[in-house]
Amino acid sequence: MKSILSEKNPKASPKTSNLKIRELVCELCRNFYQLGWASGTGGGISIKEDGLIYMAPSGVQKERLKPEDIFVLDAEGNVSEEPGNGLKLSQCSPLFMHAYKIRNAGAVLHSHSINAMAATLLFDKHFKIKDLEMQKGVEGYGAFDTVTVPIIDNTAYECDLADSLEQAIRDNPKSHAVLVRRHGVYVWGKDWKQAKTHAECYDYLFEAAGRMKQLGVSLD
Amino acid sequence: MKSILSEKNPKASPKTSNLKIRELVCELCRNFYQLGWASGTGGGISIKEDGLIYMAPSGVQKERLKPEDIFVLDAEGNVSEEPGNGLKLSQCSPLFMHAYKIRNAGAVLHSHSINAMAATLLFDKHFKIKDLEMQKGVEGYGAFDTVTVPIIDNTAYECDLADSLEQAIRDNPKSHAVLVRRHGVYVWGKDWKQAKTHAECYDYLFEAAGRMKQLGVSLD
Amino acid sequence: MKSILSEKNPKASPKTSNLKIRELVCELCRNFYQLGWASGTGGGISIKEDGLIYMAPSGVQKERLKPEDIFVLDAEGNVSEEPGNGLKLSQCSPLFMHAYKIRNAGAVLHSHSINAMAATLLFDKHFKIKDLEMQKGVEGYGAFDTVTVPIIDNTAYECDLADSLEQAIRDNPKSHAVLVRRHGVYVWGKDWKQAKTHAECYDYLFEAAGRMKQLGVSLD
Amino acid sequence: MKSILSEKNPKASPKTSNLKIRELVCELCRNFYQLGWASGTGGGISIKEDGLIYMAPSGVQKERLKPEDIFVLDAEGNVSEEPGNGLKLSQCSPLFMHAYKIRNAGAVLHSHSINAMAATLLFDKHFKIKDLEMQKGVEGYGAFDTVTVPIIDNTAYECDLADSLEQAIRDNPKSHAVLVRRHGVYVWGKDWKQAKTHAECYDYLFEAAGRMKQLGVSLD
Repeated sequence: MKSILSEKNPKASPKTSNLKIRELVCELCRNFYQLGWASGTGGGISIKEDGLIYMAPSGVQKERLKPEDIFVLDAEGNVSEEPGNGLKLSQCSPLFMHAYKIRNAGAVLHSHSINAMAATLLFDKHFKIKDLEMQKGVEGYGAFDTVTVPIIDNTAYECDLADSLEQAIRDNPKSHAVLVRRHGVYVWGKDWKQAKTHAECYDYLFEAAGRMKQLGVSLD
Repeated sequence: MKSILSEKNPKASPKTSNLKIRELVCELCRNFYQLGWASGTGGGISIKEDGLIYMAPSGVQKERLKPEDIFVLDAEGNVSEEPGNGLKLSQCSPLFMHAYKIRNAGAVLHSHSINAMAATLLFDKHFKIKDLEMQKGVEGYGAFDTVTVPIIDNTAYECDLADSLEQAIRDNPKSHAVLVRRHGVYVWGKDWKQAKTHAECYDYLFEAAGRMKQLGVSLD
Repeated sequence: MKSILSEKNPKASPKTSNLKIRELVCELCRNFYQLGWASGTGGGISIKEDGLIYMAPSGVQKERLKPEDIFVLDAEGNVSEEPGNGLKLSQCSPLFMHAYKIRNAGAVLHSHSINAMAATLLFDKHFKIKDLEMQKGVEGYGAFDTVTVPIIDNTAYECDLADSLEQAIRDNPKSHAVLVRRHGVYVWGKDWKQAKTHAECYDYLFEAAGRMKQLGVSLD
Repeated sequence: MKSILSEKNPKASPKTSNLKIRELVCELCRNFYQLGWASGTGGGISIKEDGLIYMAPSGVQKERLKPEDIFVLDAEGNVSEEPGNGLKLSQCSPLFMHAYKIRNAGAVLHSHSINAMAATLLFDKHFKIKDLEMQKGVEGYGAFDTVTVPIIDNTAYECDLADSLEQAIRDNPKSHAVLVRRHGVYVWGKDWKQAKTHAECYDYLFEAAGRMKQLGVSLD
C-alpha cells in the first residue's frame, strides 16, 4: 500500500488528504450495504472536507473499501489523489459535482435502494408524499408539507445523467434529492450527517409510498 | 470531552449521573437503529434510574451517540446535566415526562418504525388487534384479549403533542403506548427492559395487522 | 455470579453442567433475535447434552442471556441447576419435554417468527406446502413431497398447550414441528444443528406460503 | 484439526491449498447467510484459485464453516484435499463444474434466496426483466437491455440437475445464472468478486420483479 497521504498533484492541491474522512467513507459504505443501498457494487458516498472531495471508486464492492481505495478531488472535480491499483473514478463524479457546486453540498450519496427504485414506478415526473412525520428530517419540510422529489429518466451511461440531473436540481430548489427512473436516487446535505439523515428519511418516504399503495391507502 | 460526571446544576440535582445508564441508552439506540425504529435521527429512548432521567439529544444520529452526549433530567424534567457541544434537548422531553409522571414509568421510548406508522393508516381512533400470543408480552394482556392503542393526530411541532398525548394516556389506562398518526409510537414500561419488551411486542402487533390486511385475513 | 457449575440437586443429577452448552444456548438466542424469532422476550431454544437439558428462563430478553442464566434439567424435566436471581423456568418446559421424550429430540426451539404466525392464518388444521427444494432440509422429506405441519389452537397459558401438542406430535409422526395458531411454532431435531436447520427450513416454507399467496400463486 | 495444508492426493494435485481462500469461502458464506441466501444449510460458494477449486461441504450450516472444513478439488473436479470429520462433498459439485468448464468461471455460487425462488413462480421457461439500472452490474448487459435467465425444472436429487443445467448454460450464452424452479439460483463470474456482484444484482432483479408484480407494475 502506498502512503495514503502522498500527494499526486501537488500544484493543484497543496492540501493533503485526511485519513479520518477516508475511513468515514468506508464506514458509511458498509452501513449503506447493510441497508441494501449499495449491493452489487452500486451506490456510494462522497464527502467534502476542507476543500477536498473524497469519493469511492467505480464498480467495486462498496462494503469492502479500504481507506487507500478512495479518490480525492479538488473543489473543481479534478483528481488530486488517486488510489492506483487499477481503480477507476466513479461515473457518479460529475453528478456529485453538480450538488457540490449548485447546492454547496458537503456530502452527496447515491443509493440503489429498491425502495427508491420502486418509488419511480409509482409516479410520473415527481415523487410526492405528504403529512408524514419523517418529512421533518429533510431540511425545509414540516410534517404537513408535501415533499416532492423530481424523477429524471435513466440513461445508458451514468455520466449522461449529468445534464438532466443539473436541470432537475435547478428546477427543484427545495429538493435535496433527485430520483432516477428504474435506477435509484442521489441525495445530498450540508455535511455527511445531514446527507445520511436526508437519505434515511427519503428512503423511509419511498418505502412508505410503496406500503401505502399495497395497503390501498391513498397517497393524495 | 468534558467529564460526564460533572454536575451542571448542583442545587437541583445533588446526584451525579451514572455512566452505565448513559452507555445503555447508547446501546439501545444502536439496537433500535438496526430494527429500523430510529433512522434519520428519529426515535430514541429515555431511562429513569435513581431519580434521574437519561435522554438522548434532539436531531442527531441515534446509532452514533456517545455516553457524554446524553442529557440528564431530574424527576420534574429539569435539565440536571447537559452535554454541551451545541446538542439540544429532545422535543420528546415533555411527552416522555407524561409517561414518567402519570404512569410512573421507568423508561419511555419513541419509535419511527414504519410498522407503527402504517398501523395508524389502518384504523381511526384506536389500533385494535386480538388473539395473538405476542399480546402477552404487554403487561395486563392475555392471548385472548383485544389490545387497544389510542391514535392521536400528529402536530407540526412535537412539543404540541404533549396535551393530546397526556389525554390519551389518561383515557386509556390499560395501554402502555400511544400511536401518533403518520408518525410513530410512544411506548413505556416500569423499567427499560419492560419498555423494550413492550415496544417489540407492539411493533410485532403493528406488523401483524399490516400483514393480515395484505393476506386478506380479517382483523376482527 | 454464582458458579455456573454448582449443583443444586446433587442426588437427582450428579452430573455437572457444561459451560460450552450454556454459551451455545445464549449464542443461538442472539441468532434467533436477529432473525426476528425471539423479539419481546419470546422464543428460545433448549439443548440436550449428555443427559442434561439446558433451557433459557422465562420472560427475559433472549438476546441478552448470559451463560449463568440458563436452567439445567435432567432427562425427566426436573430442575437440576437453577440460576437464581429471580429467574423463572420457561413455561415452554413441559412442551419441550414432549419432543425430548416422544421424539428423542436433542434440541427443541420455539419461535415467534411472524412468518410462522401468519402461516397459521392461511390454513385450517394443517399447514401444507409442496415441491420446494428447501423441504429437503427437513429430515424425511424430498423436494417433491408435501410437507405437513399440524396447527394446534393457542391457549391462554403456554403450559396448557402441552396436551394438544403431545397429541399433535403423536398424530403427525413425520413432522418435526407443531404450529400454534396466532402464536408461533415449536421445532426440534436430533441435535441443535438439526433443530436449527429444521427451524430455518420451516420458516422459509412459512414465508414462501405467504409470498405465494400475495403473488397469486396457487399453494396446491 | 489436521493441517489444512496437508495433501490428500499428491499425485493428482501437487499444489497445496491456500488458507486465505479457505477463509474467504467461510467469510462469504457468513455474508450470504445474513442476506438470507444460505439458511437451513442451503446455498454456498466455490472459488477457483491457482487451478484449485475450494468448495464448502454438503448439508452443514454455511455461516459456521471453518477454513479446515473446505473441500479442495482440482480443475477436473477430483477431490484433492478433503476435510475428513465425516463432511461430504457438496451435491452441487458437478453443477459448479459445468460453469467452471463451459464458462471458464472463477467462482460459482448457489443461493436459496426466497427472491430467486419466488421469481421462478412468475415466469415459465425464462425469467425476464428490462430497463433497470442494476442490470449493468451483470457483465454484458446495459441499462436498457432485457436480462434473461433460464429456468430449469428442479429434480429430486441435486446431482440430477447437472444435465439440464449444462444444457441451459449452453443455450443461454449471455446468462451468468441459471434459475431452478421452486429452488433457487446458480450464479457465476470470472472471479469471486464478479460472482458475488452478479449474484447481488440478479437477486435485486428477482426481488424487483416480485415487487413490481405486487405493485401492479407491468414487467413488459
